[in-house]
Amino acid sequence: MTDAPEKVTLVVFSGDLDKALAAFNIAVGAASAGMDVTMFFTFWGLNVLKKNDGPIHSKGVMRRMLNRMNRGGAKRLPLSKFHMFGLGTWMMKRLMQDVNFPQLEELMDEARELGVHYVACTTSMGIMGVGKDAFIPEVDRYAGVATYLAEAREGSVNLFV
Amino acid sequence: MTDAPEKVTLVVFSGDLDKALAAFNIAVGAASAGMDVTMFFTFWGLNVLKKNDGPIHSKGVMRRMLNRMNRGGAKRLPLSKFHMFGLGTWMMKRLMQDVNFPQLEELMDEARELGVHYVACTTSMGIMGVGKDAFIPEVDRYAGVATYLAEAREGSVNLFV
Amino acid sequence: MTDAPEKVTLVVFSGDLDKALAAFNIAVGAASAGMDVTMFFTFWGLNVLKKNDGPIHSKGVMRRMLNRMNRGGAKRLPLSKFHMFGLGTWMMKRLMQDVNFPQLEELMDEARELGVHYVACTTSMGIMGVGKDAFIPEVDRYAGVATYLAEAREGSVNLFV
Repeated sequence: MTDAPEKVTLVVFSGDLDKALAAFNIAVGAASAGMDVTMFFTFWGLNVLKKNDGPIHSKGVMRRMLNRMNRGGAKRLPLSKFHMFGLGTWMMKRLMQDVNFPQLEELMDEARELGVHYVACTTSMGIMGVGKDAFIPEVDRYAGVATYLAEAREGSVNLFV
Repeated sequence: MTDAPEKVTLVVFSGDLDKALAAFNIAVGAASAGMDVTMFFTFWGLNVLKKNDGPIHSKGVMRRMLNRMNRGGAKRLPLSKFHMFGLGTWMMKRLMQDVNFPQLEELMDEARELGVHYVACTTSMGIMGVGKDAFIPEVDRYAGVATYLAEAREGSVNLFV
Repeated sequence: MTDAPEKVTLVVFSGDLDKALAAFNIAVGAASAGMDVTMFFTFWGLNVLKKNDGPIHSKGVMRRMLNRMNRGGAKRLPLSKFHMFGLGTWMMKRLMQDVNFPQLEELMDEARELGVHYVACTTSMGIMGVGKDAFIPEVDRYAGVATYLAEAREGSVNLFV
């Protein structure tokens, strides 16, 4: 623990825009303060890492249906409240722009420039039938819960979002 | 770290009654045990700190709409499940009363008497167009994620609610 | 702290299948790595610990209604998204089976074999009018927030799910 930077880990379980914004806001803040940040994306949180124009085909009818409904991509995430078929989410993005708060995809760029690590949960990928080709190239690692725990047990701040 | 009390931090992201109750139950429990508790209210969580009869005007049509729909105030928060246009939430409050469990506003009073600190997230306030006049006077600080992280990195228990 | 195993605590607030799966996946992973895991089930999270064929009677009309609507049991939990009157949840279980990922009740068995501790929140039980007879026998303790905090302040990883 001598001179190593403090660690922060975030489990991003949610695929909602508002929660993703909160997670990345913390990640960027921590990385700016010199902390070493790892984000572990699992379940609906995988949607945050999906390409906006990624493939939606998978093997089997059920996975195809799921991946069509649950398409993901940082630009496509809904708010957890007041989504209102897209109207509320569109409004929230306008409000963010209005005060010069970065959009999620810009926050993600900032996070990457500051060295935030992205881990995509392979267990969830297996269940949902999503391959690596569905994700943005910024993903550092494809791994499971053991990798998350190895980071988190060293973390000064560990959150589940 | 010598004789300083242990720290607990809670990010209150949610504006749902049930999650707010859980957060304050933990906060009051920790403060009762002599721990130093900071609650950081962000996004929908700001609703917990809003006055029950606070102003709902803001600049611009979209912010006015948002603040009308998302009015907030401890007495007005909905359950995350079974809200049922208010009926389920009303029932839950009755059930709490029935076993002498304090209502949220009473738990908040208790938290304050025990010295729990409230921080309102200025970033969310900016996006949503909510000014300080919308909040109860018990808010200690108006600050951003850097302030939260400074507390959390010292925390023995840090949760995201 | 000499040779004692590291501690992990999870507050399970949610009664959704997907969040319960995430919580137990972390719990099983941590226990497999030799960590001492305590799960504290509160509010809707109590549903995870309910018997699948448990009693749904309680005292009073409102509690009876609540416990009928909010019946719980590991086999009966809905997804937080795409539940679609059970269809989406049924599909997710099929997808899990398809890749040999254990169902929630199997993960729970594994957790128990690895010594994960279950604590049911007595405060929530009191409010909701649920007695010990509603729960599976694997529950270790019936306790409140003070018990949770005593574990969490020693925890290397503490999450709120």
